[in-house]
Amino acid sequence: MSIYDFKWSADEKKVARIAFDKAYQREMEEIKNALTEKVKELQNEKDVWALHDYLTERRKLVDRKYDYRYSQLILVFSQLIREGNLSIIELSDLTDDKIELIMKLSSNE
Amino acid sequence: MSIYDFKWSADEKKVARIAFDKAYQREMEEIKNALTEKVKELQNEKDVWALHDYLTERRKLVDRKYDYRYSQLILVFSQLIREGNLSIIELSDLTDDKIELIMKLSSNE
Repeated sequence: MSIYDFKWSADEKKVARIAFDKAYQREMEEIKNALTEKVKELQNEKDVWALHDYLTERRKLVDRKYDYRYSQLILVFSQLIREGNLSIIELSDLTDDKIELIMKLSSNE
Repeated sequence: MSIYDFKWSADEKKVARIAFDKAYQREMEEIKNALTEKVKELQNEKDVWALHDYLTERRKLVDRKYDYRYSQLILVFSQLIREGNLSIIELSDLTDDKIELIMKLSSNE
């Protein structure tokens, strides 16, 4: 079975949705905080456009990363854990095979 | 003669450059201040992307507006005066025909 073909029960879908949304909120909070800091340090016009470039890049990455398709969730959760926006504990109600795979993939790369 | 064909003396070019740069700096300062205010009011993730959209739009407008080609300067200065980022006094060393035209165009639209 490929990692794209796991079955997700109704309960697992709830757990997954909550974890996904929390990670998203954490990342957005981090961007908000980064913005607040960067705005304090604005000196000249170039800094304004550098800030715009920063937001453009973060938005592109966020849009790409937060892909809530069940076929993608194992990979998405692995990345979120690797990057520190999610803890495996928040996924502890998933089936063991999913948890093992997510942990394995999150420690690679 | 069309408005695109004025001759600009060396002295006029200096005056034009200084006025153009000042207007640009004022507009960037305004964007910087708007940014500072908007960041203070950030509430949720949608506000972060709304701020990004705001910057994208302002950048596009600024890039389009600040066109330092002598063929365009009469129109550029008219717009800058109309929008309040430049005063006709800052262009008082240009020839009378240019000043008259800029004033006329800046009050139209």
